[in-house]
Amino acid sequence: MSTIAAVDVIIAKRDGRALTDEQIDWVVAAYTAGEVAEEQMSALLMAILLNGMERREVVRWTAAMIASGIRLDLSGVGRPTVDKHSTGGVGDKISLPLAPLVAACGAAVPQLSGRGLGHTGGTLDKMEAIPGWDPLLSPEAMTRQLAEVGAVICAASADLAPADKRLYALRDVTATVESIPMISASIMSKKIAEGTSALVLDVKVGSGAFMKTREKAAELARSMVDLGAGSGVRTTALLTAMDSPLGRAAGNAVEVAESLEVLAGGGPADVVELTLALAREMVALAGLDVDPAQVLASGRAMDVWRAMVAGQGGDPDAPLPQPQVREIVRADRSGIIGRLDAMPVGIAAWRLGAGRARPGDPVQSAAGVLCLAKPGETVAAGAPLFELHTDDPSLVEGALADLAGAIEIAPPGAVVDPGPLVLDVVR
Amino acid sequence: MSTIAAVDVIIAKRDGRALTDEQIDWVVAAYTAGEVAEEQMSALLMAILLNGMERREVVRWTAAMIASGIRLDLSGVGRPTVDKHSTGGVGDKISLPLAPLVAACGAAVPQLSGRGLGHTGGTLDKMEAIPGWDPLLSPEAMTRQLAEVGAVICAASADLAPADKRLYALRDVTATVESIPMISASIMSKKIAEGTSALVLDVKVGSGAFMKTREKAAELARSMVDLGAGSGVRTTALLTAMDSPLGRAAGNAVEVAESLEVLAGGGPADVVELTLALAREMVALAGLDVDPAQVLASGRAMDVWRAMVAGQGGDPDAPLPQPQVREIVRADRSGIIGRLDAMPVGIAAWRLGAGRARPGDPVQSAAGVLCLAKPGETVAAGAPLFELHTDDPSLVEGALADLAGAIEIAPPGAVVDPGPLVLDVVR
Repeated sequence: MSTIAAVDVIIAKRDGRALTDEQIDWVVAAYTAGEVAEEQMSALLMAILLNGMERREVVRWTAAMIASGIRLDLSGVGRPTVDKHSTGGVGDKISLPLAPLVAACGAAVPQLSGRGLGHTGGTLDKMEAIPGWDPLLSPEAMTRQLAEVGAVICAASADLAPADKRLYALRDVTATVESIPMISASIMSKKIAEGTSALVLDVKVGSGAFMKTREKAAELARSMVDLGAGSGVRTTALLTAMDSPLGRAAGNAVEVAESLEVLAGGGPADVVELTLALAREMVALAGLDVDPAQVLASGRAMDVWRAMVAGQGGDPDAPLPQPQVREIVRADRSGIIGRLDAMPVGIAAWRLGAGRARPGDPVQSAAGVLCLAKPGETVAAGAPLFELHTDDPSLVEGALADLAGAIEIAPPGAVVDPGPLVLDVVR
Repeated sequence: MSTIAAVDVIIAKRDGRALTDEQIDWVVAAYTAGEVAEEQMSALLMAILLNGMERREVVRWTAAMIASGIRLDLSGVGRPTVDKHSTGGVGDKISLPLAPLVAACGAAVPQLSGRGLGHTGGTLDKMEAIPGWDPLLSPEAMTRQLAEVGAVICAASADLAPADKRLYALRDVTATVESIPMISASIMSKKIAEGTSALVLDVKVGSGAFMKTREKAAELARSMVDLGAGSGVRTTALLTAMDSPLGRAAGNAVEVAESLEVLAGGGPADVVELTLALAREMVALAGLDVDPAQVLASGRAMDVWRAMVAGQGGDPDAPLPQPQVREIVRADRSGIIGRLDAMPVGIAAWRLGAGRARPGDPVQSAAGVLCLAKPGETVAAGAPLFELHTDDPSLVEGALADLAGAIEIAPPGAVVDPGPLVLDVVR
């Protein structure tokens, strides 16, 4: 093994050859150990992005990233384990109602999550809007909560696929994020290492998503489903639309509030639809014969939510943070909302303080955007379209500029079809 | 300019777009200033290698590298300036007889040179085999010697195209050397910055050269000739064969000795042929109406050599370093030499101590390989084929292994045609 040189691995991929298992094992381990320089790995990443990888290479790369850290053993929780991962969208708070719902159906949901960067929010940032809630759990505490409550949303341990953490930071500054093999390996290495037996992927497609086209999204979904299967994790992917924000809320506390509406039996139709669609896949993969819609209607998902929040120090009854400033954007004419773009809404929420520009920056819990009119809905002139929340009034002007043009009001009587939310299933 | 981000430059090239002049100027300057990280530049270099560059981009990149340092002004030397650059071959000592020869023809030859790395030797390493000779000259001393003697072989100042120095080191460890735009820009930025008015390129083709095929060599030659023309430097390229070593000597002192034979009117036919072919192009570009063959025969080139060596502290009469160990490899049968491969000879010379594995390593002046039988020559069984020189007997065994298979003895009477040395001219 010691005869492998980083330059030879780069040359192989640069010249369009497949890397050998030995090369992959070596380069991932040596990079993690600091023996392959950042500039060498970035050249290799660009060669991988431009020349691609075979399925075998992606499987091996993923395994090497898992082997760079620990793999949790959740066999002791006494329930079938199943998790969900979303590739990221605007207003995508689905994990919050979904984890307790699937737990209420009888599964254990080990939702190890990350923080947001840029226009898509992070699940941990949203949960931290709940007073007292702590994202850090020891593996023992996590296993105990999974056994007793059935759901955990917590920060992923730095010991899970540490190679991925370093690689992701490098890809981010070297414009090598957009590689389907690397995206697949990054997501799946963390999910496989967390120890779940089954996984449902929510692969977002559209103008507000990382994957802009259905073809690219399907390719990513297929790559990840195959990777899961190859690693003994039963995996299904839904391709879902991300042209408009999910629900009405994009931000932190506002998304918690909307999630609570869903758990209480209400909430926006699209959030409920996607929560149930993902829950049905998860329940099926967990081998449970339960209808998530009935469980949601029963209120048992809300009970699990409360136990889950309380189990991590949160107060489920505490009022959520309220913003210092609220700014309303109103319709300048009457009509029907024809289009509402996810990307500018995500950017506005980010700019108002809900997101961060750099890893480690703080976020405002109360910041965000409410979309008070969604495609297909009728508005009168002067009706509110957006409500901007922030603690810093100086941020409002920039967010208003982001939102200019984000919404289109079609003439009254126009026919608007927002299209289906779930576009496809990849098994 | 400050709004340009490294990631956006990488994305443009990654996605197959041409970089703008502003992007090129910025990224080269910012990298030189340490504001673009090594890992970002290496990702960009790999994208350039795989996606290529238009001619305009290469011209601009070269100009940006020149602008990263100083450009010498040789207008005061009182003679037409003309230089030569070789892309590197085994036994390529041509600069040593060529510079004084062209100076004796009336031109000024500012031969700013580098050190060797790997199987191709460095001109400075060879010259340093001459006792007392100093490769370091101030710009003033260089200009004075060019005016008075007509030829200088010295180390390139670190102030010439410093961006190239950093980029080359990065390309070396990231497997991004093999990019024709980057090779062209690297060579031409240094040669243009050195201030020569004209330039002849010796682009090597063959198994012992960096460019293995005539097509690639022609592409590189065309790229560099165009770059020279675009920067006001009259440039011609010869494509020359590098399948067998040039001459009989590969190493340091052994190549100086062979160069002295040429200057004295003897020496191997191929070394004489290539020296004269390059000299004729250089003399023509310098606008001089002189026949280099006549000048060589006159002994005036040897006079210039002695003045050039003495001008830099060298003793042209001092004996050259002799090796501690000489090992002879003999023919195991009689016949005609059908093939002698440059690459293993270069590697053997390197391994015997003539070259270095890492920049900054010392080299042995006395180390090298003599090729005592060349393609087309008849040998009897037991006749010497190679003579290995080194100061370290432990290195002989490895060099012998390198040379096994490097030479082929065809049956007596076989017809061997080594082929032409000069393959093409690109103007």
